[in-house]
Amino acid sequence: MTFTPPSADQLLALAVNAGIADLAAHERFAAASPDLVSAIVEGIGAFAAGEWAPLNRLGDVSPPVARNGVVTHPDGFARAYRAYVEQGWNAVSGPVEHGGQSLPLSLAACIQETLGAANMAFTLLPMLTVGAIEALAHHGSAAQQRLYLPRLVSGEWPGTMNLTEPQAGSDVGALRTSAMPITDGPHAGKYRIKGTKIFITWGEHQLAENIIHLVLARTPGAPAGSRGISLFVVPKVLVNADGSLGPRNDLKVVSIEHKLGIHASPTCVMSYGDNDQCIGELVGAENAGLKAMFTMMNAARINVGSQGVQIAEGALQQAMAYARQRVQGARAGSPDRAPVAIIEHPDVRRMLLRMRALTQGGRALLYYIWGQADRAALGDDAASARADVLVPLIKAWGTDMGCEVASLGLQVHGGMGYIEETGAAQFFRDARIAPIYEGTNGIQAADLVTRKLGMEQGAVLLALLADAGAGAAQAPRLAALARDCAEVARWMSAEASLDDRLAGSVPFTTMCAVAVAGWQLLRQAEAMDRGEVPAGAAATKRVTARFFLDHIVPEAAGLKASAMAGANLLYQLDAEDLAS
Amino acid sequence: MTFTPPSADQLLALAVNAGIADLAAHERFAAASPDLVSAIVEGIGAFAAGEWAPLNRLGDVSPPVARNGVVTHPDGFARAYRAYVEQGWNAVSGPVEHGGQSLPLSLAACIQETLGAANMAFTLLPMLTVGAIEALAHHGSAAQQRLYLPRLVSGEWPGTMNLTEPQAGSDVGALRTSAMPITDGPHAGKYRIKGTKIFITWGEHQLAENIIHLVLARTPGAPAGSRGISLFVVPKVLVNADGSLGPRNDLKVVSIEHKLGIHASPTCVMSYGDNDQCIGELVGAENAGLKAMFTMMNAARINVGSQGVQIAEGALQQAMAYARQRVQGARAGSPDRAPVAIIEHPDVRRMLLRMRALTQGGRALLYYIWGQADRAALGDDAASARADVLVPLIKAWGTDMGCEVASLGLQVHGGMGYIEETGAAQFFRDARIAPIYEGTNGIQAADLVTRKLGMEQGAVLLALLADAGAGAAQAPRLAALARDCAEVARWMSAEASLDDRLAGSVPFTTMCAVAVAGWQLLRQAEAMDRGEVPAGAAATKRVTARFFLDHIVPEAAGLKASAMAGANLLYQLDAEDLAS
Repeated sequence: MTFTPPSADQLLALAVNAGIADLAAHERFAAASPDLVSAIVEGIGAFAAGEWAPLNRLGDVSPPVARNGVVTHPDGFARAYRAYVEQGWNAVSGPVEHGGQSLPLSLAACIQETLGAANMAFTLLPMLTVGAIEALAHHGSAAQQRLYLPRLVSGEWPGTMNLTEPQAGSDVGALRTSAMPITDGPHAGKYRIKGTKIFITWGEHQLAENIIHLVLARTPGAPAGSRGISLFVVPKVLVNADGSLGPRNDLKVVSIEHKLGIHASPTCVMSYGDNDQCIGELVGAENAGLKAMFTMMNAARINVGSQGVQIAEGALQQAMAYARQRVQGARAGSPDRAPVAIIEHPDVRRMLLRMRALTQGGRALLYYIWGQADRAALGDDAASARADVLVPLIKAWGTDMGCEVASLGLQVHGGMGYIEETGAAQFFRDARIAPIYEGTNGIQAADLVTRKLGMEQGAVLLALLADAGAGAAQAPRLAALARDCAEVARWMSAEASLDDRLAGSVPFTTMCAVAVAGWQLLRQAEAMDRGEVPAGAAATKRVTARFFLDHIVPEAAGLKASAMAGANLLYQLDAEDLAS
Repeated sequence: MTFTPPSADQLLALAVNAGIADLAAHERFAAASPDLVSAIVEGIGAFAAGEWAPLNRLGDVSPPVARNGVVTHPDGFARAYRAYVEQGWNAVSGPVEHGGQSLPLSLAACIQETLGAANMAFTLLPMLTVGAIEALAHHGSAAQQRLYLPRLVSGEWPGTMNLTEPQAGSDVGALRTSAMPITDGPHAGKYRIKGTKIFITWGEHQLAENIIHLVLARTPGAPAGSRGISLFVVPKVLVNADGSLGPRNDLKVVSIEHKLGIHASPTCVMSYGDNDQCIGELVGAENAGLKAMFTMMNAARINVGSQGVQIAEGALQQAMAYARQRVQGARAGSPDRAPVAIIEHPDVRRMLLRMRALTQGGRALLYYIWGQADRAALGDDAASARADVLVPLIKAWGTDMGCEVASLGLQVHGGMGYIEETGAAQFFRDARIAPIYEGTNGIQAADLVTRKLGMEQGAVLLALLADAGAGAAQAPRLAALARDCAEVARWMSAEASLDDRLAGSVPFTTMCAVAVAGWQLLRQAEAMDRGEVPAGAAATKRVTARFFLDHIVPEAAGLKASAMAGANLLYQLDAEDLAS
């Protein structure tokens, strides 16, 4: 299939939902002129279509293989990654002092989204690097920043995140990898790392001359649980003080997982310190590793939410193209019984419009969040708090939505959708990881009903919901959903037990996300109608937003009973009876 | 994983939802004594666990291969199929005069369900044979019945259905395969078949010495469209008049599709008459092929709905087992922070209970339908009409539900669920075909809002909904949903255009199916409470039914706006703008 970058809708979301012009009015983001914004959106679109998309199916059918500690991708990946680095795409939001452009996160988000829509599995490589940059930029020493950041920012050296161990999945505090201080010799002051990490995305590959692993581990005598975890930078190839490459570090890939999807992304079992010679440097303070991880977590979770939008966009484009060319059956009730393209059948239209409404609703929500995050970086505390509340919404609902749109896309293809060569099945398989990693969607929902709902005694979430429901005149159903959300939020804050809140957390998260996404989509349609943004596709957007408000919003309201059902029923059976 | 047949819940559904005791009171089904019912349910459970389940993963990772017209399965499949035939499982519902036992369809359904829960892809082989038996039993000549039925009924010769062609998917009327009458020679009175068929399930294999293909084709001068289609029986190996095998017929497998799931089931491209020597016999009257297909369609569609229940059962068992043994994290708010099995976490419980409620709700609905079909066979016209209305509900919602439960099962496993070796991903992949084949779920929904809604001016559907909503005291939300369904049905009958009805058909189908499934689950719980059936698991069933009524029923009510939204919005954009 041909990938067409969704540039117009991205520019709209940047203008309306991220408010990029307001951001550019601040000195820090003054470089983000309309011309530069257009150039980036168009440029990354052309790059993604030209370099990234052609590798999407290849990576699926010819996944990388691990042999003797070397992970090899099919031809094309190394060249495409080199082009990505050389053209400077990786450096857009990185700090200026380390070679970045310090442009708004909203713009970097557009780069991520576009690349991921063309090739989600490949885009995990730069996506993980973002986390490594953030960790070192916020917590690294000046020497560490000087040594690693310029080449992380350029993308020359990609980064990885090493949290999970076999016994420590969602419960990071249970990890056992050890870090022993080195007291003498050339590495004095550094640590010897030893342990096994699993699920390490792009943990090993041949696309760059070095890989900068960030590894969570325990120092001797560290407190048990999550308070005893420290963060280490552990390069694949040791880096000399002058920045030149030294010897290989004592770490290696053990194996690659055989996964349902995102085959091009090698998910590695990594072994550190098999020969007790794995050298790492402490990043930040000892036992402050989890705090450092939290720094990266927001961006990572929003980026995973973005993957839902990415897969949805790809699936939508393929389904639309198929539905226009596939002729099958006559319109119901047509007198001449002439066969038509299936896009003309009512239920196929419903599926396609639903796919579009979900995809563009997700995008509107995504850029709204990045806009808040950019304002947070400018010192706007209210925006910072709002961004915090929005993170679980885009991560959980965005990724669920991506799965739904991919499934609808497959359905539009009928029997052909089930054939792997068609490509619809790849979207369906790739999409399914996003509700799981970077904190399962259940964990996102738990975050919403505990930490996020608790911010300012619920006022941050309630203010967001009030804004979402303010347009009652144009969107009475949206206003009703926002009121329902507020009612659930108040019940959860005032009356519900912790178990009750957790029991209703997932349906509640969906309700809130749909309310905010609907509001952001409505804002787009209204801005077009008012002529504040180019209104070429205003009619299409109006229909899309209307579908979201008339179909998807009332459906979400149907989750209210589930959100408020409480936990009692869940615990009436013991584990044995429940499982019987 | 270990497969445990869901015998107790099946016996409950047979007793309450199918009303097997009432059926056995009729002379025709007198053999279906309680002892025999138990023996069959327990027996097929042991058989499925022992012979079918161990091949489930093998068939996924080592799919059959086609080489030189021969399709070869991995070791074990041929032996297991032989055991299935020899033990007489295939013959349970076949006509007595051709070696069957003429037991109720409800019991044959239990055999299908159990086998499919153990191995869905393998079970397609006997499932397709059912259709061939029905076609010949209803439309075949006495000679055809004598020649083919005994060995189809025993399962010795499996059957296939050949409808689809590349240009004729859901629109069967567009098919082009030709059938030329043979006027002299040894095959006089028969036809030469020529054409290509795609998506032929188990079209070729080495598990039996013959395969009986039923093929739709056009005779010379047949009317265009679906009124010019005839049905032919086309054996892989020609059968002499004395029942002995003759020469190979001129038909062959061209290739096997590379599919998302159900890998053990070879989906074949079949070529008939490459050498103009493919011999077929007309079944029934010329140009009455589609009518003959309709004979088989109800059973086939219910059986596909059953596949949703099958996959759900397998996914549920695996997720329950994992959630009980996987220790991760402490209960929220627990003072000692001791790690617990994840089944103790509220949202994991919610997912598991949701999986169980959907699975058992689907099963209750499934056996209710078969019970109605059995009553139809006894001459009960009201039951016949009700069964007709119920078919699209189980096919569409049952299969959507199967996909949802498989997806939840994967989610319960967290990151491990995305790893193929875990097995959760296979359920997720296998499940996804069921909403597509045997008429996409969109086609099922169209059937509901046109033909089925129109039966007796809507009275058949409205009576069903009235029954479903009658228990308002114990289940006010169910009563409300049933009222909502009735309101939509009346609007569709009285005010809505054909396009409006089709636009709302899919959400409406879900609403109706959830209402009826909830009712059937409630009937189970009530029968246990009243002691009419063994009540050992009454507490578990009560919680399961309550979850269905408190969570799933109100969610379905949220679809009402979508069901009544009409088609106007769908057609405001032309195809180009919609796809842009």
